Amino acid sequence: MVAPSLFLTENNIALATDLYQLTMAGGYFEHGIHYPSSFELFVRRMPQNRSYLIAAGLEQAIHYLLNVRFTEEAISYLKTQPPFASLSRDFFDYLRAFRFTGDLEAMPEGTIFFPGEPVLRITAPMIEAQIVETYLLAVINYQILVATKASRIVQAAQGRPVVDFGTRRAHGPQAGILAARASFIGGCTGTSNVLAGMELGIPIIGTAAHSWTMTFDTEREAFWRYHEVFPEHTLLLIDTYDTLEGARHATELGEKLRGVRLDSGDLVILSRQVRKILDDAGLHQAKIVASGDLNEYKISDLLAAGAQIDLFGVGTEMVTSRDDPTLSGVYKLVEQRRGRKTVYALKLSEEKATYPGRKQIFRQDHRDVIGLVTESLPGQPLLKPYIRQGMLCTDLPAIADIQERAQEQLHALPPEYRRWIDPIPYPVEYSTALQKLRDTIAGLRRV
Amino acid sequence: MVAPSLFLTENNIALATDLYQLTMAGGYFEHGIHYPSSFELFVRRMPQNRSYLIAAGLEQAIHYLLNVRFTEEAISYLKTQPPFASLSRDFFDYLRAFRFTGDLEAMPEGTIFFPGEPVLRITAPMIEAQIVETYLLAVINYQILVATKASRIVQAAQGRPVVDFGTRRAHGPQAGILAARASFIGGCTGTSNVLAGMELGIPIIGTAAHSWTMTFDTEREAFWRYHEVFPEHTLLLIDTYDTLEGARHATELGEKLRGVRLDSGDLVILSRQVRKILDDAGLHQAKIVASGDLNEYKISDLLAAGAQIDLFGVGTEMVTSRDDPTLSGVYKLVEQRRGRKTVYALKLSEEKATYPGRKQIFRQDHRDVIGLVTESLPGQPLLKPYIRQGMLCTDLPAIADIQERAQEQLHALPPEYRRWIDPIPYPVEYSTALQKLRDTIAGLRRV
Repeated sequence: MVAPSLFLTENNIALATDLYQLTMAGGYFEHGIHYPSSFELFVRRMPQNRSYLIAAGLEQAIHYLLNVRFTEEAISYLKTQPPFASLSRDFFDYLRAFRFTGDLEAMPEGTIFFPGEPVLRITAPMIEAQIVETYLLAVINYQILVATKASRIVQAAQGRPVVDFGTRRAHGPQAGILAARASFIGGCTGTSNVLAGMELGIPIIGTAAHSWTMTFDTEREAFWRYHEVFPEHTLLLIDTYDTLEGARHATELGEKLRGVRLDSGDLVILSRQVRKILDDAGLHQAKIVASGDLNEYKISDLLAAGAQIDLFGVGTEMVTSRDDPTLSGVYKLVEQRRGRKTVYALKLSEEKATYPGRKQIFRQDHRDVIGLVTESLPGQPLLKPYIRQGMLCTDLPAIADIQERAQEQLHALPPEYRRWIDPIPYPVEYSTALQKLRDTIAGLRRV
Repeated sequence: MVAPSLFLTENNIALATDLYQLTMAGGYFEHGIHYPSSFELFVRRMPQNRSYLIAAGLEQAIHYLLNVRFTEEAISYLKTQPPFASLSRDFFDYLRAFRFTGDLEAMPEGTIFFPGEPVLRITAPMIEAQIVETYLLAVINYQILVATKASRIVQAAQGRPVVDFGTRRAHGPQAGILAARASFIGGCTGTSNVLAGMELGIPIIGTAAHSWTMTFDTEREAFWRYHEVFPEHTLLLIDTYDTLEGARHATELGEKLRGVRLDSGDLVILSRQVRKILDDAGLHQAKIVASGDLNEYKISDLLAAGAQIDLFGVGTEMVTSRDDPTLSGVYKLVEQRRGRKTVYALKLSEEKATYPGRKQIFRQDHRDVIGLVTESLPGQPLLKPYIRQGMLCTDLPAIADIQERAQEQLHALPPEYRRWIDPIPYPVEYSTALQKLRDTIAGLRRV
């Protein structure tokens, strides 16, 4: 028995889905159902205390759509599973040749959006559109959650840089790199995750750990040894034994000291005392970095109380979106073409009802209107084509441009929609045509 | 610009770490510091309302330790990063040849444990032991969190099967498969994640979705069409339009109906009404599956209120451990051999203090004692060797055996330690020798 890696690869992502997607695929196939179908991904409810969301995760969704395949190993496994026993050989041949051949429209990453608004739409033959649901939700839900949380923390820091330190507390190693990406989109300056640095070009940032200090006989020696190797990059953790003593030891390194990090204790009192120690030694250039279970609420309180902190390292709270760690993103069938007939789909179950038809969002001044794609309403349409007939049809922006988009849109948002607690809901309306379509379809269904 | 996958592979896991691990590695290397060092991974605090934790994630930690390598691409990237500019060519040659050559001791997966108890210990040359910290924490923290949450939900279901439906709400696609594994360890019967089924042999389970029902002109037709393809596996979602009407339509399929799923509405009232409809039609064999933001508290309330549910599909709340989505797992230096001298390490910072020395946990009847490895105390020692000098030195158990271990240990735990709310803390003590060592070292440090 060898330990399995549980890594995702181009060879196994097709199975990173819920079983029912593949059994339904078999059912559609056996009935010859290949209707062009449109599904929309949207967020049902705002997470607690949030007043806006930031679109993120589209690049990984695109990578998936362009690469999803069923290998022989995957097909052999499916054949061993009882529900598939009744399916024809043709179905497995279909899976063998499976490619995503449909269209993807989506909001550009970094777009501010609100519940009910489609973040993306897939239009493809029914089986293709169905199978991709689970993976798209997994990769999009999480990045939206973290980009949004990060932007709140960045705002709380009032211009001071915020760096992602969260990999060790993310929900597994891949969540760490996804969080690094999403938090950068949300406004972080960098990440401690080296892989995110290499894969995405995000600035990587780090200090030192307690283990460094503990490896030398004295803290003083540990600091000097670090400085010898990294004379231009000396940023030391000073709370291993006694924070103020640590600060005094750090000042001995002189003017090349880049900064010190506090990771425990009362950050208001300690940061002010440490600042004074640094300043008294003439080390005005040395920065104070703070870390340790920080979030937007605590950072806001720290700064209001006069903490003297130059940079925040944020981990756990950001990468798990701790105060509300889930996003109610769903992916719903909205329209099918059955021969010459267009069928609009909607759910009527009370708390989970949906709107039918392919939609567009029209962004007006301080108001969004969700209409049908066939409408031409005032405002900026938010959904744009990314994949046509299975092929990428546009260039993807650099991540710095995505971050900039989010910042611009955030700044354009009136402050009452950016409060951390009890924010006002942003005005999002449904167009008259969409409401009418919904009432008509609901009426037909109820008959 | 092609969309990056952000997949982990054997070729990039070495960089799935915090920058400071690699800069400190450079610092140790330049100073010739290769002391054999021991780090222990333990959980600082119990998550909210938890009274025990379940060890999980060890297999993926082992896979990492046996496979971590620095590729030329990784090394080239590091060389472009400013902090590495001052490091010698020898350091990069060291990274090129890097292998984990140390030892791993750990609790078997499925072991019940408590805060302060080491879940695993790495003993290796300092650089190796340091570099692996971030990845080990990421892969272990999350699986412990989910295995523990799942076991609470399984207990709340009082013998009814619980199935993981959470992939779409997990923190990214890899978190989905890690959650499937961990929730199975915690007592779930299966998962909807097909990849987890293939990679781990976990039973996969699924029903049908609203999109299936909406693809046919009527719900009745949708149900029949499903039944035609899957006569032995007909488990239908009945809340697309009207749940009770849906139940009546389902009964028309007759005695081969396996069951129906409720995903919205008042599950107490609806499940009782649906049960009656099924029973009145003579379909006593048909099961009722419930899903929709369920957790241990809601399941407990549902059953107490008389809900007639046979199987629970649990997603969001379980795979995000929603009521407390983070685990305070840390990895701390405890001991170093510097030539002939053994140095015990500890942190004194107030709220994050640690105990020095390599430890063993001795499990006695309803009491754990944390002592030193050199002690021989009454009780069952929990930490066992897994890797010796970089090589796996034991067989790994099948996942069903891990699940069984957890169940056995849970059942042995008195009920007051298994309450969902306000549980009693389990008695965990430090041995006299360990306390004495700590006081001695702390005293020396404070001088």
